Amino acid sequence: MAEKNLNLCVLYDFYGNMLTDKQREVFEMYYSEDLSLAEIAEHTGITRQGVRDSIKHAEASLIDMEERLGVIRHTKEMREGLGAIKELAVEVERVNRLDVPSLEITRLTGRISELADKLAEESV
Amino acid sequence: MAEKNLNLCVLYDFYGNMLTDKQREVFEMYYSEDLSLAEIAEHTGITRQGVRDSIKHAEASLIDMEERLGVIRHTKEMREGLGAIKELAVEVERVNRLDVPSLEITRLTGRISELADKLAEESV
Repeated sequence: MAEKNLNLCVLYDFYGNMLTDKQREVFEMYYSEDLSLAEIAEHTGITRQGVRDSIKHAEASLIDMEERLGVIRHTKEMREGLGAIKELAVEVERVNRLDVPSLEITRLTGRISELADKLAEESV
Repeated sequence: MAEKNLNLCVLYDFYGNMLTDKQREVFEMYYSEDLSLAEIAEHTGITRQGVRDSIKHAEASLIDMEERLGVIRHTKEMREGLGAIKELAVEVERVNRLDVPSLEITRLTGRISELADKLAEESV
């Protein structure tokens, strides 16, 4: 726990629901509210060492879950693929406009771009 | 455990890695190899009641993980969205062919369809 690891916040956003209430409370104080171990100890009535153990245990659980399930890695790949689909749709529309544009193609490619954006945003 | 639930196999395919080795062994004998509780008890040396408890515990864990993380539900939505993107790309190509077709649009929409298929297949 040399320094606060921002990747852990990404893991927490997805896997946080798998932690215990106590782990979540302490994790959020440490990572979201940026409190020190001593401050969290004071707030929660746990010893400083207990706070440290709870955070380390939560961190290990988050990393272990990603190693087992790989959702974050997969989400990154999915977003890249959806970005590529959007680029292709934009390119179709560019080609469509070179000659007499088909308004229907403009409408359909616009829908593809919107849908790719929406799915990328919703991807866990 | 009135009957074997096929939805649990879908959950197992994704969340199975989160179960213990013993739970996985027993779960696969029951669901994949379609053995009876008595047969699994004989194979593993666990009591029939122990086998039953292990399967019930694994089933509850799989359902609980999906309730907390929702990956299967999300994957279904993602696949539907990618299917809609593919339909739009096919429609663009149909419109493209109504007049003098642009070969570039044919190529690009083909790429969109392929990519949508690939992402749907890879979606966890």
